[in-house]
Amino acid sequence: MAAPTPLLKDELDIVIPTIRNLDFLEMWRPFFQPYHLIIVQDGDPSKTIKVPEGFDYELYNRNDINRILGPKASCISFKDSACRCFGYMVSKKKYIYTIDDDCFVATNPSGQKINALEQHIKNILCPSTPYFFNTLYEPFREGADFVRGYPFSLREGVPTAVSHGLWLNIPDYDAPTQLVKPLERNTRYVDAILTIPKGTLFPMCGMNLAFDRDLIGPAMYFGLMGDGQPIGRYDDMWAGWCCKVICDHLGLGIKTGLPYIYHSKASNPFVNLRKEYKGIFWQEDIIPFFQSLVLPNEATTVQKCYIVLAKQVKEKLSKVDPYFDKLADAMVTWIEAWDELNPAGASQANGKA
Amino acid sequence: MAAPTPLLKDELDIVIPTIRNLDFLEMWRPFFQPYHLIIVQDGDPSKTIKVPEGFDYELYNRNDINRILGPKASCISFKDSACRCFGYMVSKKKYIYTIDDDCFVATNPSGQKINALEQHIKNILCPSTPYFFNTLYEPFREGADFVRGYPFSLREGVPTAVSHGLWLNIPDYDAPTQLVKPLERNTRYVDAILTIPKGTLFPMCGMNLAFDRDLIGPAMYFGLMGDGQPIGRYDDMWAGWCCKVICDHLGLGIKTGLPYIYHSKASNPFVNLRKEYKGIFWQEDIIPFFQSLVLPNEATTVQKCYIVLAKQVKEKLSKVDPYFDKLADAMVTWIEAWDELNPAGASQANGKA
Repeated sequence: MAAPTPLLKDELDIVIPTIRNLDFLEMWRPFFQPYHLIIVQDGDPSKTIKVPEGFDYELYNRNDINRILGPKASCISFKDSACRCFGYMVSKKKYIYTIDDDCFVATNPSGQKINALEQHIKNILCPSTPYFFNTLYEPFREGADFVRGYPFSLREGVPTAVSHGLWLNIPDYDAPTQLVKPLERNTRYVDAILTIPKGTLFPMCGMNLAFDRDLIGPAMYFGLMGDGQPIGRYDDMWAGWCCKVICDHLGLGIKTGLPYIYHSKASNPFVNLRKEYKGIFWQEDIIPFFQSLVLPNEATTVQKCYIVLAKQVKEKLSKVDPYFDKLADAMVTWIEAWDELNPAGASQANGKA
Repeated sequence: MAAPTPLLKDELDIVIPTIRNLDFLEMWRPFFQPYHLIIVQDGDPSKTIKVPEGFDYELYNRNDINRILGPKASCISFKDSACRCFGYMVSKKKYIYTIDDDCFVATNPSGQKINALEQHIKNILCPSTPYFFNTLYEPFREGADFVRGYPFSLREGVPTAVSHGLWLNIPDYDAPTQLVKPLERNTRYVDAILTIPKGTLFPMCGMNLAFDRDLIGPAMYFGLMGDGQPIGRYDDMWAGWCCKVICDHLGLGIKTGLPYIYHSKASNPFVNLRKEYKGIFWQEDIIPFFQSLVLPNEATTVQKCYIVLAKQVKEKLSKVDPYFDKLADAMVTWIEAWDELNPAGASQANGKA
């Protein structure tokens, strides 16, 4: 059933943040080779990252980021996988798929290898239904539909901006849960895709994620993490909360569920605890902040929404910790850098302006 | 792994609305026989319904309903499975499971028979998480947990009031979808349970449903349907919307997903279309009504919430159709009848008053 031409071959970039040789790509070769890769090399820029033969890629290390963005490079994290968002910014394609280099091809319960990218593309290309819950999950899948009682006026759905995939084997747990359940593995293959309802926040993981750059790209900022920052492992979470409130405001959808990848190795829970512990506290203020956030009607583009959001972060979260003051500034810098690198996209993608 | 004593054996009633002999119970014998059944006989009360040997049951026909409720019997539908809610009212137990007589035991992908009732009980006895979405679904299942980024303050959850189960084989489609896809069968077993997020409405199907009478019983009214009414097949939907807004207001949870039953036969789509078509129109006004409904802080019990809701229905939906004026009155009658039959429960269950 493999399509003769891979879906969106010339419209999608695969973004991979890494500090090591990309041997993991061998396993993905049948699925990824037709696509262009953007590799964001983290850490020591003098190190050479080996990419298996036959892949079409561009690679950016810290020196490249500094050269391209100049002083605005300050908004891109260092020594943290949050650096991946630089790849989102330099891409010229409509769609992005991002994956971690410790994620392998998973198999479904019938033993077939899962083409995660293909499933993400299917998710993104069909509408989302954030205004009403469908009990048989994704109504657009083969063999499924809207159930009795689903309002007909809502069946057209809205454009899908984000597709959030899951992980078999090592689940994406926080450090305390890792410490308490060191041996827990995710073996449950849940054959579902669903739209996260409007008004509901979710923990977006950056390990296996696709999105539409034109629709939501400028909100996919992974924040300030890692080197010189008091926090780590909240990069994707931050992006997820920002994206969700902006999608809700602009009438866009976010799906979660299939596809699965196989997450091979658990990160060190002690190291993770050090990175996370401030986030664990701060989150108790961040979540109510996002839950009560109201974006104004004038915020009709992702950029405008994001700038309003940055102002609100400064105003409301800086009292939680001075870190948020810095983060709010970086959010503005990120948008400036985005618009600089995407001058056409900025107006085209946000055509409502 | 079968528990030696069935869970909640003396605290749960199984409510079955029917017009025929209950041969379908044979298949459920291993799972249902320890429990008490409440059979609500619809249609001609002179007909005798045969119940297989060995089941402990009480049976009510229309004459019984009229005798027990007197003039208040007007709130109980006739010639429609909505009559089942009479069973909820006469029960003296804390939990209800209700199932249609064309629902058989389903098998899971490993070929094991699914004890639907046991799974419902597990769902109801563990908390719900309506305030934040967990991407690995039910965090309380074996092998699952809350993922990274899930706020710790929200992990305790809230009490679960309703467990909504699904259907393999014949999906619960409306008449137009039945007509368009006469051969579609649900063969996808989705191994998930999830909490419907706060603020999100869903289409609740009454075919395979469990709930906590003490927590939500008085809102589980299936409305005026069938004989003498302009509408059918919206009984469970109505109950679902009422329950959801009241659960959201009172801080209670609703789960959907497992368990599956095997739904054996599709109802006639032409007959269904006649019953449904007004509902299909009205629903376009009903959903925004429920989405924008705000219950006052003083509404601290299910009964109080329901009376406020009835007033709002009269005020806001009567202009859609005079039917809603009648329905609003019936909602009040239902609560009066409920409190009459459940004088102790009324105060105990709603102890916050």
